[in-house]
Amino acid sequence: MPTGKWWGEHDGIDFPHVIMSQQFSREQLEVLFKLTTLLKGMLPKGMKVDWLRNYIISTLFYEPSTRTRFSFETAALRLGAGVISSENAAEFSSAIKGETLSDTIRIMSDKADLIVLRHKRNDAALEAAKVSGSSPIINGGSGTLQHPTQALLDVFTIQEHFGKVEGLKVAMVGDLKRGRTVMSLAYLLSKYKGVEITFVAPPIAQMTVDIKDHLDEYKVKWNEEEDFLKVAAKSDVVYMTRYQLERAESTEEKEQLKKAAESHIMNRTVANAMPENSIIMHPLPRVEEIRWSVDSNPRAKYFEQAKNGDYVRMALLLMILNQDKTQELISLPIKKAA
Amino acid sequence: MPTGKWWGEHDGIDFPHVIMSQQFSREQLEVLFKLTTLLKGMLPKGMKVDWLRNYIISTLFYEPSTRTRFSFETAALRLGAGVISSENAAEFSSAIKGETLSDTIRIMSDKADLIVLRHKRNDAALEAAKVSGSSPIINGGSGTLQHPTQALLDVFTIQEHFGKVEGLKVAMVGDLKRGRTVMSLAYLLSKYKGVEITFVAPPIAQMTVDIKDHLDEYKVKWNEEEDFLKVAAKSDVVYMTRYQLERAESTEEKEQLKKAAESHIMNRTVANAMPENSIIMHPLPRVEEIRWSVDSNPRAKYFEQAKNGDYVRMALLLMILNQDKTQELISLPIKKAA
Amino acid sequence: MPTGKWWGEHDGIDFPHVIMSQQFSREQLEVLFKLTTLLKGMLPKGMKVDWLRNYIISTLFYEPSTRTRFSFETAALRLGAGVISSENAAEFSSAIKGETLSDTIRIMSDKADLIVLRHKRNDAALEAAKVSGSSPIINGGSGTLQHPTQALLDVFTIQEHFGKVEGLKVAMVGDLKRGRTVMSLAYLLSKYKGVEITFVAPPIAQMTVDIKDHLDEYKVKWNEEEDFLKVAAKSDVVYMTRYQLERAESTEEKEQLKKAAESHIMNRTVANAMPENSIIMHPLPRVEEIRWSVDSNPRAKYFEQAKNGDYVRMALLLMILNQDKTQELISLPIKKAA
Repeated sequence: MPTGKWWGEHDGIDFPHVIMSQQFSREQLEVLFKLTTLLKGMLPKGMKVDWLRNYIISTLFYEPSTRTRFSFETAALRLGAGVISSENAAEFSSAIKGETLSDTIRIMSDKADLIVLRHKRNDAALEAAKVSGSSPIINGGSGTLQHPTQALLDVFTIQEHFGKVEGLKVAMVGDLKRGRTVMSLAYLLSKYKGVEITFVAPPIAQMTVDIKDHLDEYKVKWNEEEDFLKVAAKSDVVYMTRYQLERAESTEEKEQLKKAAESHIMNRTVANAMPENSIIMHPLPRVEEIRWSVDSNPRAKYFEQAKNGDYVRMALLLMILNQDKTQELISLPIKKAA
Repeated sequence: MPTGKWWGEHDGIDFPHVIMSQQFSREQLEVLFKLTTLLKGMLPKGMKVDWLRNYIISTLFYEPSTRTRFSFETAALRLGAGVISSENAAEFSSAIKGETLSDTIRIMSDKADLIVLRHKRNDAALEAAKVSGSSPIINGGSGTLQHPTQALLDVFTIQEHFGKVEGLKVAMVGDLKRGRTVMSLAYLLSKYKGVEITFVAPPIAQMTVDIKDHLDEYKVKWNEEEDFLKVAAKSDVVYMTRYQLERAESTEEKEQLKKAAESHIMNRTVANAMPENSIIMHPLPRVEEIRWSVDSNPRAKYFEQAKNGDYVRMALLLMILNQDKTQELISLPIKKAA
Repeated sequence: MPTGKWWGEHDGIDFPHVIMSQQFSREQLEVLFKLTTLLKGMLPKGMKVDWLRNYIISTLFYEPSTRTRFSFETAALRLGAGVISSENAAEFSSAIKGETLSDTIRIMSDKADLIVLRHKRNDAALEAAKVSGSSPIINGGSGTLQHPTQALLDVFTIQEHFGKVEGLKVAMVGDLKRGRTVMSLAYLLSKYKGVEITFVAPPIAQMTVDIKDHLDEYKVKWNEEEDFLKVAAKSDVVYMTRYQLERAESTEEKEQLKKAAESHIMNRTVANAMPENSIIMHPLPRVEEIRWSVDSNPRAKYFEQAKNGDYVRMALLLMILNQDKTQELISLPIKKAA
């Protein structure tokens, strides 16, 4: 396992494993975001470097996700690494023969220098990190709770736009109960002073008690609201989420969620009611919770946000696998992307 | 979006997007085919160059096709590009969660420098081109109508063999109604003077009116025949196609197609009845419409044709992504492949 | 097709095709294993060379196997080759449209410089080798009988540990009837003098007559036993296998196999009864036939064995595709991996 000056244990996880968003210290976040900004300036499309040329990165996806997989693979390739990839490990790997995840990871960690794991189980990434030996694990989404690289790119996007995170008013809207992205994001936002979070969701989809307890512990102000327009009008960030019908536990619940999905829609009226310098975010994919007409609104930030994901993941890979280059880069003055 | 001297709008499509076979001007085809011939001479198996080393090419296949995907990926790798690949995006991507193709392409186009898209819908590639920003789209097969790179490799194969396309007699045989390759080919052939096309198919599988109207408009002589042996005996090119049972709309239609499939078989008798310098083509995969015994006939060109596909795709990628190298190469004298 | 001094026909197969374990001569095995040892010393994780930089290797898997595919792809990437990959060719390729394997291979062999094929049919690799032209085929597992690279890595692991294979006592345990790995291994072991094999399995899963006849022909001593503990106590190698319930031909047989699976378990008691310098092997994946508590026993060799697979495959690829480098390397003195 590589070691580095920015690493160490936080909340029980040893970076360079990336298991949960709350594991990151503010110092680690600062290094990561500075590196992200630099890479975004240096590596537009059509550019490639060889800083990870000796490494093989494995994307081991037990839950298919072309978008997240492509983001990690793009990051790896633009930095010169090789990629071994499984789109659908749940069906195509030995899992189907009854092999445990631990056995799979022990074997894969002899092949890949770093493993990006996406899995249905909440504890999958943590379990993998325990047996992966010298290969760091990056959680590419696990179960219903964590999607740490999503949270990192979310916070980076906020900081890039506002120049800070402290003191911002953030509204989270939609299926908060089933959305691991908003949970990971809430954990990460709790590291910044003065952030205020408003949860806008029907009761069937409201944020879980776990997260609210965590926010209380970290003295983050939060409240619940039903009136979307009113909340939007005074938020710096409106973070929309999709109703995850496929995670419903019964046909009845699915129907209720479908109906709830109609209650909080980001349309032109809501978007225009938002403050001038505010932004609309979404982890994507969206279905109908953000109307297409909003895409051209200057507040719409969700495609830029997705693009930032590629650079945050590049920065993470570089920070983990090539510390010399990381150190060299973060000593440079920042040049903004065009 | 890159721009180049051979590019521009034809039939409503701006090259470097490659959406439909008829979009190509004769000048573009000449550059492309000259480049293809050069690359075929310079890049046999076991050879690689780095002319696209800074680029990432995505193969985004909503309809699985190992052959076409491997052809594009081989082309990309031999030119030094990186590849991010989805074998089965219809099941493994956010499409399953209700995301629109436009949203997917907007996100993917921030990752890949060029996207090869294969999709069930006829208008998929065109829709993608509208939102893909600076990343060109290549249609790797869409719906029932278009498979432009197949048509390009078909015409290249004809020109490579005969030294010209003008004035040739081409027979298209089999399931013409469901075959997007013959449709794309017919569009492309209409650009060459004096080509005569004979459609040989049972009524249930005959060529569509759209194509016939197009040929009429471009003053291409065409006719329909049932007597395969008679047609074969006076054709320069016999282009066989597979009966696409999987595209049948009912069990009844499927049964009728199965029966029709037995009516026009390329066997040793038909092959030997063809003129000496004629060729037999097929987009592959074949089932039984060309007998194995024909493979050793000197007229059998279908495996060479498939191989040409790799080089046409290489030429297309190079022409789109590296114009300086393209310009340098097409100024060279042609050295034929061994 | 490349040719080389270590190649030639053995048992009807021309190396560099790798079709069945018994095709290898002792001289070929010695070159391969020396090369494997060298590469294991030279190419730990985080290291890459460019000795195959001009080549494209295709992993064409009709039976999904993330582990074996990743092993070949890791080997290819660490040596600098490009990879085109299909996780599930049975569903995603033209096989589903009725194309023959021969046609597929003829086409793929124009794209890839070497094809790794995994297939359900016993004769698939041999059939592929007949039509693949200048592209060598490596059998990545075919049907119920052969998995030659597994056998190679097994014998390499034995030789690495004991410094020799001759004269060792090997117990094969579990579902021997359905296990292609033990069959391939038995064939390969028959090339070494004085090896004694004991088959430990319930009648429903005992080794096939074919293999026993082969061993008789090559004068390899073998016998069948039921008392696992007694056999383990006097074996140098205990090779465990998984009961392949998914290959059962009826629900009844499946139930019988499930029951049989409980009869020969490698647990702490059995492991500790084994001789001091003995080893426990398993092709993996395991289910419950080796208890987790055995993993920390110094005799447990199965994860090292899996890791050796990556290096044996690297050695095979290099030996086939770059003989100059192979020759140069095997002239070097061996430096053991740490």
